[in-house]
Amino acid sequence: MLGNFMYCNPTRIYFGENALDGLKKELPKYGKNVLLVYGGGSIKKNGIYDDVVAILKACGKEITEDPGVMPNPTVDKLYEGCARAKTCKADLILAVGGGSVCDYAKAVSVSTYCDEDPWEKYYLHMEDVDNEIIPVGCVLTMVGTGSEMNGGSVITNPHQKLKIGHVFGDNVFPKFSILNPTYTMTLPKYQMVSGIFDIMSHILEQYFSGEDDNTSDYVMEGLLRSLIHSSKIAVENPNDYEARSNIMWIATWALNTFVAKGKATDWEVHMIGPSIGAYTNATHGMTLAAVSIPYYKFILPYGVAKFKRFATEVWGVDPTGKTDREVAEEGLAEMEAYMRSLGLVMHISEFGVTEDMFEGIADGTFLNEGGYKVLTHDDVISILKASM
Amino acid sequence: MLGNFMYCNPTRIYFGENALDGLKKELPKYGKNVLLVYGGGSIKKNGIYDDVVAILKACGKEITEDPGVMPNPTVDKLYEGCARAKTCKADLILAVGGGSVCDYAKAVSVSTYCDEDPWEKYYLHMEDVDNEIIPVGCVLTMVGTGSEMNGGSVITNPHQKLKIGHVFGDNVFPKFSILNPTYTMTLPKYQMVSGIFDIMSHILEQYFSGEDDNTSDYVMEGLLRSLIHSSKIAVENPNDYEARSNIMWIATWALNTFVAKGKATDWEVHMIGPSIGAYTNATHGMTLAAVSIPYYKFILPYGVAKFKRFATEVWGVDPTGKTDREVAEEGLAEMEAYMRSLGLVMHISEFGVTEDMFEGIADGTFLNEGGYKVLTHDDVISILKASM
Repeated sequence: MLGNFMYCNPTRIYFGENALDGLKKELPKYGKNVLLVYGGGSIKKNGIYDDVVAILKACGKEITEDPGVMPNPTVDKLYEGCARAKTCKADLILAVGGGSVCDYAKAVSVSTYCDEDPWEKYYLHMEDVDNEIIPVGCVLTMVGTGSEMNGGSVITNPHQKLKIGHVFGDNVFPKFSILNPTYTMTLPKYQMVSGIFDIMSHILEQYFSGEDDNTSDYVMEGLLRSLIHSSKIAVENPNDYEARSNIMWIATWALNTFVAKGKATDWEVHMIGPSIGAYTNATHGMTLAAVSIPYYKFILPYGVAKFKRFATEVWGVDPTGKTDREVAEEGLAEMEAYMRSLGLVMHISEFGVTEDMFEGIADGTFLNEGGYKVLTHDDVISILKASM
Repeated sequence: MLGNFMYCNPTRIYFGENALDGLKKELPKYGKNVLLVYGGGSIKKNGIYDDVVAILKACGKEITEDPGVMPNPTVDKLYEGCARAKTCKADLILAVGGGSVCDYAKAVSVSTYCDEDPWEKYYLHMEDVDNEIIPVGCVLTMVGTGSEMNGGSVITNPHQKLKIGHVFGDNVFPKFSILNPTYTMTLPKYQMVSGIFDIMSHILEQYFSGEDDNTSDYVMEGLLRSLIHSSKIAVENPNDYEARSNIMWIATWALNTFVAKGKATDWEVHMIGPSIGAYTNATHGMTLAAVSIPYYKFILPYGVAKFKRFATEVWGVDPTGKTDREVAEEGLAEMEAYMRSLGLVMHISEFGVTEDMFEGIADGTFLNEGGYKVLTHDDVISILKASM
């Protein structure tokens, strides 16, 4: 059943090989001061930086650069960005990069004119935004997080050993996002498949929850089938535009709030994975991959009907002559074989996880209530053991 | 392959049994003058009118009524609505009703401050809107057209015997729409199943086009499976909230521009059906139903691969030991059986169509280029014969 909800997603998407032309249409809507936010500088090698700067200059913008956004943007970097945004009186924050850069841009957007400590107000205490918000636009160069069309913003405080994500309201969503699939083609295969599994995990976290019948589950099955199909092609040929464009669009819709509307969600894999990441600095999508099969095997007995549906509708498992449990397990076996074929990391030991870290990782794992079984601390330990 | 596109859908949706509470959140955003648009007065019988007016008054609004919007809103009614909107200096047009009422509200929205004849400018010549637009909000009481979350607006000029739909840009989309599934439950079964087939047809018009692989087709297969599942339940028990809520949400996503992005579309059934409607005044969804199977049988030989996919992915046809053509035809047979089980009209003769009308109906049928076969005038005649 579709529960009560509010849905609004005002982000304007420009999609395709000429998507950057959309930037020329958007820039006149904002004042002249642009804070240009990016990461380690790969955009200078692949030419995207030059293309963006040329358009900014042609549109008469004053550019203040804010480079060096790290994969897990820190609160110290956030304070630095806010100071720059304030000094240049930014009318627009333009994020050029992947999910971390977009997340960071949203953090600067809400924090620059925050009278209190934004880390405390917006991340520790998750308060609503009541100060001026600087508009954000994104030019996406990596695929996976969905940050280009939602309010999510994860910031890390290394002093407090905390990594907190605030899902802001639609007033903080990017005003526009430029999605050019060719920008994602230069990414190494390890990063590409990690992003692909991040997308899959976003969908599964919303799919494996609830016993009711709702349209979102059918839509997610479609997104999953398309993702599986296109990812197999992309792994063979990373330059296949059709596959890469489908993957980019699926990533956006996997986490732009649509499929979550009116239904329960789980998000437990996204609790365990990042807790491993905190101990190992492993790539986000790979930590999700390494714990997913053990986690789903663990909760399968509590949600057999949905896992059976997953097997038949997503993986095409033939249920003839099999018990529901057998069909459900065959679905996970298909998923595991698919994951191996993609070259995903299937063992947390490969990140350097050792048994003495288990307690700490389990302590750092928030136990959600939306899944088919609410985990205990010991359950998390069991899943970590099975993930070695 | 996903082609280049721009996507933006800023409509805010309030969904569920308490969705009307959303109206209290939205009204303070607009000035005090509200043009209240509705149809034949059924909302006065079922209590929705009283609930809406109570909220408008509680929020301090001045209400100007504009009742009597007909199923096919006419240009004369449009001129009348514009005069009322101008006189009351409407700050918001609130449409309470089905697709026709929403369509009409959008027409008044763009036409009130149009210096030229809005029929000529926005319907005959399909020009972009360059005058002031009055914001529109919708309280939806019927399901099917998707008008609650798009820019579509169909206006009929009986003097010129023309019925023209303009798909306006996102600046004309409703600012908000209230979707309460219980509002749709009082509708007679004939209207309900007609609306259900309108939804199905919207999806099929976008599905049966193109040879490429794109995510939209997978999403549409999910929407279709959910629609088939929920419609079977709704026909048995129109008060099943779960089924009716899923159908309401599918209707919105079938035509809110998402699934069309980056792909070719057909829309030929929506050319033939309304042309029949012009001769018979038959219910829109029923005209689509009566010509769909003959139309799809006619084009099947030109798009066997997609019709085969439709059969296996939407209807669960087992392809073992069958030719592609046989699988494809079995899919249409399944669809036909489903349509009969819903009680849809399967013969245009039931609307009073006679053979002497065929030439006129075919003359009034625009021949689109997006389908698997571009029809000729004679093809339309053949399809009409097969629909008798």
